[in-house]
Order: sequence, then C-alpha cells, then structure tokens
Amino acid sequence: MANALILRTNLNEGIPGPEHFEMRQFPRPQLGDGLLVQLFVVSADPYMRYRIRSDGDFKANTPMLGLVAGKVLESNVPDWKPGDLFGAELPYVDIQAVPAAKLAMFRRLTGLVNEDNISLGIGALGMPGSTAYGGLTDILRPKRGEVLWVSGAAGAVGSMVGMIAKHVFGCTVIGSAGGPDKCKLVMERFGFDHCIDYKVCKSTRDLIIALSKVAPSGIDMYFENVGGMHFEAAMKCLRPNGRVAVCGVISDYNNPKMSPNKIYISNMIYTAQRIEGFHCFPWLFGQRGNFLQDMAKWVDEGKVKVEETVFDGLESFGSAFRALFEGGNTGKVVVRVTGTKSKL
Amino acid sequence: MANALILRTNLNEGIPGPEHFEMRQFPRPQLGDGLLVQLFVVSADPYMRYRIRSDGDFKANTPMLGLVAGKVLESNVPDWKPGDLFGAELPYVDIQAVPAAKLAMFRRLTGLVNEDNISLGIGALGMPGSTAYGGLTDILRPKRGEVLWVSGAAGAVGSMVGMIAKHVFGCTVIGSAGGPDKCKLVMERFGFDHCIDYKVCKSTRDLIIALSKVAPSGIDMYFENVGGMHFEAAMKCLRPNGRVAVCGVISDYNNPKMSPNKIYISNMIYTAQRIEGFHCFPWLFGQRGNFLQDMAKWVDEGKVKVEETVFDGLESFGSAFRALFEGGNTGKVVVRVTGTKSKL
Repeated sequence: MANALILRTNLNEGIPGPEHFEMRQFPRPQLGDGLLVQLFVVSADPYMRYRIRSDGDFKANTPMLGLVAGKVLESNVPDWKPGDLFGAELPYVDIQAVPAAKLAMFRRLTGLVNEDNISLGIGALGMPGSTAYGGLTDILRPKRGEVLWVSGAAGAVGSMVGMIAKHVFGCTVIGSAGGPDKCKLVMERFGFDHCIDYKVCKSTRDLIIALSKVAPSGIDMYFENVGGMHFEAAMKCLRPNGRVAVCGVISDYNNPKMSPNKIYISNMIYTAQRIEGFHCFPWLFGQRGNFLQDMAKWVDEGKVKVEETVFDGLESFGSAFRALFEGGNTGKVVVRVTGTKSKL
Repeated sequence: MANALILRTNLNEGIPGPEHFEMRQFPRPQLGDGLLVQLFVVSADPYMRYRIRSDGDFKANTPMLGLVAGKVLESNVPDWKPGDLFGAELPYVDIQAVPAAKLAMFRRLTGLVNEDNISLGIGALGMPGSTAYGGLTDILRPKRGEVLWVSGAAGAVGSMVGMIAKHVFGCTVIGSAGGPDKCKLVMERFGFDHCIDYKVCKSTRDLIIALSKVAPSGIDMYFENVGGMHFEAAMKCLRPNGRVAVCGVISDYNNPKMSPNKIYISNMIYTAQRIEGFHCFPWLFGQRGNFLQDMAKWVDEGKVKVEETVFDGLESFGSAFRALFEGGNTGKVVVRVTGTKSKL
C-alpha cells in the first residue's frame, strides 16, 4: 500500500494543526514511463500556509504537496537508477510513480548527502538553504563589516542567513527570535553577535529601541521573515544604501486579510535604499549563483550548522505545520516518513 | 556689482513664493586661485523644497544654492579658460569667484551646448536629465515591450523618462499629469501612448481604475515623482518582476510632516518586485552609465525633446519655485539670469 497525507479542508484563518489533515491508503502504484520513488522526508514550511487557503492552489481532499527528499526504487529513464537520492516537489505520498515528464525539476542529491542525512535535501541544500543563499548573496549583497539584521533567526532560513553573513561574509549579525531559549541558540550555536527577544517588545517603538541598542549606527541590511513591526523597525534603522530582502511575512499568514505596513518612501531617495522581494527558485534550480556547491562547502566546513526539529511519521505533519506558527521549532522542520531508515 | 538671490526665511509648511526671497547687491568679487564666473541660468527644482526647511541645509539670510550653468570670465587654473561653459552647484550670485578647491564638481559643457542653449546644462544634460537617465536605465532597467508608468509626466524629469522609455527602449509609456493641457502636451509633443489626468481622480481607487483602463494587464515599471495615491495605485497594478524607482514625492514637500504610504510587502515576494530609491549623482558625475554621451545623442536625434518654462531675471526665482508646486510649469523650470545674452 501507499500512504498519503490529505488536506481535509481549506483554511482561511487561524493556525493549522492535525485536525486539518488525515492519512489515506491507496494501492501501491506501479512504475510508469518515469520513476517509482519512496519519500524519506517531507517539509513543513511557512509558505504552505497561503496555499491551503480557499484561494490557494492546494485543494481539499487531495494530498498535500511540497518539498521532499527520497530515493528511486525503480526507473524507466536513463538518467536515474534505483538507489539514487533526489529532492523534488511532490505530493506527500510515501511511495509513488512519477511520470517522465515531471522529472525536469528533480534535483540529484549527491556529495555530502546520504540516506542518513537526506533531510539536508529539504534543508540546507534545498528550499530554505537556497532561500537564505539567494536572498543574502544576490538580493542583499553583503560587504565585509556591514550590519545585518535578520528576523526569524532561530528558524530554518533566518539561521542560515545569519550564519552565512557572519562566518562567510564577515558581517556583524543581529537576529531576532521569540524567547530567551531561541536567543541563546542563535548566539551560542549559530554565532550571531546579538539577538533581540522580540516577545518582550510590545510595540514598534520598543523594537526600535532594542535594535538601536545593539546597532547604534543603524543597519545596512534587513532580511525579512516576519513582517509587521519588524519591517517598520528595520526601515526606521536602515542606513544609507540600505537593502531589505523580503522573504516571508509569517506574522500575517494566519490572518484572513493581509495587514498593510506603513512606509515613508521619501526616506529612500537620498539614501538610495532598496526593498526587494524574492523567492528561491532561481538559485535552487541553478539559474543564478552557485548555490549547491557553495552551500555544501559551507556545511562541510561547519560555517553553516544544520539545525532541525524532527517529527516522526507522515501523520505528524499537522503537528509539525502547527509548530511553525507557535514558535515550536528551531531550524528546519523535518517530517520523517515512517518506514525509512533515515535516522538523523 | 554682483547680485545675489537670498533666502529670507526657512519655511516648514506651505508653498514657497517670491515673498520668501529677496535680492541683495555685493561688490563685484575678484578672481582668486580658481575662477571668476558668470551665471547664465539657475534651476528651480522640487528637491530644494526640503532644503529650505529649518532642518534643511539652506540657511536664511544667505544666497540660495542650486544647479546652475554659466561661463568662465577669468581663470587661474590650467583646466579652464575664459569663455568655457560649465554646469555646477553654486550659490545664486550672478558673478562670483570660485576657489580652485571647489572645481572638482564642475562639469564642462561642450558638444551640443553653446551660450544660446546653455540651459541644457541644467536640464537634459544636467540634474533632471541624469535623474531620468539613471532612474530609467539602471534602476528600472526597461525591456522592449514592457509597460512603464511615470507620474509628473509633463515635468522636467517625468517627460524625459517617458520619452527615453518610448523612443529609445521601445516601451509602452503611460504618463500622469494634472489637467487636459498637460496631458495633451505629454501625448502630442512627447509621444506617450497614454496620459492620465490625475486631477479627475478623487481617490486611489479612481486612479487604479484609470490606470487599469490603459494598462489592463498591469504595469512593469513605475517611476515615482509624486507619492501619495500614485504610489499605492502603482503597487496595486504592478506585475510580477515589477520595479518602482523612487525619485521624488512632490505631493509631500509642502507638508510639515511626511505622510506614510500603505504597503503590502507580502505581495512582493512571489512576484519578485523591487522598490528602489535613487538620486542622480552617480550618473551626473559619470560613476555609472554613459549619461552625457547617450543623452546628447538622444537630444540631437530628437528622441528627447527639450521642454522648458523660462522665468526672466534672478529675482523671478520665487515665482519660478512656486510654479513647481502649483502646476505652473511644463518641462524644466529655467531662471534666466539678467544681463546674459542667453536667448532660448
């Protein structure tokens, strides 16, 4: 049999959890013109929150879809052979046939990656890694000695942004995270220079004061994962030639309507400041930069430390997804599919 | 004697006019270690509005300072000889000695430029020209067939942005301007595809409807000269990979406090949209691009048409400055200094 994680209902408001998902069994599929594959790990990522809304592209009563890593079981194509490891976007079904026409977006996981650490393929060497890499290197373009602020600093993307900026580019790196335990992790394990516990900031003004204390001359770059008061505090403290990379707005994801921010665009003119949104695809698929080689090297050298919060079993996806919005994770949220021998 | 235009009082609110300036006479200065120069034309530009506030850098009871073009009368430096024409930022004093240490920022006006059309040096080949050039070519980076919207389309910068985008880059160009006469000029003389009379739009929603009518698939680029409802309408209609160049916010210049805009940064992520502020210096001084050669060629070819509103006499600066904020000009506002033989 094959096991699928099904989205039970679309959800426009509030925090998603186990009650919005269920498992279903199907007959084990047969190899077609492409591959028969087994999933080892699947992702729970904040961006999925938009996609389960009724105006999103994930439909109720169908399997969830997202970024996965797994192994080829059987193959009918010359490029792939049984045992090969891959990363891809696929339905959350533990064993499935993939048509040959859909293999263009499969990424081969080699080098550092083996069955035991295959979650790298959905983490540092997958979507979050390429998001951190592209957003930092090509959108923010750091220079040695500049000051970076990154929100969601204990999360999958934010932690890697800060580690690359600090240990590769030689920036001064300030994080913000929710609560003292996360701030400790950010400082001690990831090696950030400072971390602001945003939960003790009751207002944008509080956050500006906290940021100004650790960045008295302001910030050169802000990597946005959170939105809301973080964005406005960053703009207030942004120096001339400052850059803001907009990656995510998690504070907004569970609200029925998007919340606007206030912006004073006239402040951006003589300072030549820039705000730029982006998504990871150009770097993940090799159209820009040198993501896989660079990131594998940095992981290997220990400059980027792999941090994961692991949930066991495809059926635990709902709990894993909920954790993202309740501060229940550090680093990448990995859902390990039952029956694999993955043992991080 | 030398004649100076003096700022009488700083002004934090309201429209500046003749009552805020006065003329004063000084003894004719003597040549020092640099140049003795005569001004032929001086600028009235919107950006000066910020600088005459009490927190600006223009002090009451001193001469106004801004972009000028003139001629060398006497010289003590090898690079300049009597009769040479120049563009520079100088105090508004018709005859003045310029120390050698201040000549680094002098630009030589040659090629197309002669005494009769020297206002090109404060227009198409000066600050407004380099602003239009840099903002369009390096900040917006147009591709053939893309749709550009530019506000202040009858003004010095906006008109040139649209003409370059249309006649050099092959874009579809939409302007916005105040009133039917300006819209007619924008369409008929400058050759824009469409022009929106923003004065008939009572709200952001009206402006969005007007813009959507002429750009039913949205806009790829917005060149911001105005701010307020223009910015929000542009963001609403901005397509994926859309870019906004923030050049000026004239709707805000006479208010005592800056007005914020609403922005939904989450809309910028998957669309990879960018908002970028800039000022003309990198292009005006040749650090980026190829401004002087390119623009002189486009003027010569008639792709960029020179449009000016001329005021006669240094003492008319106050009226010229007021015209900028009352819709009283088309193209570049030129103040012709009395006693020159400039005769555009």
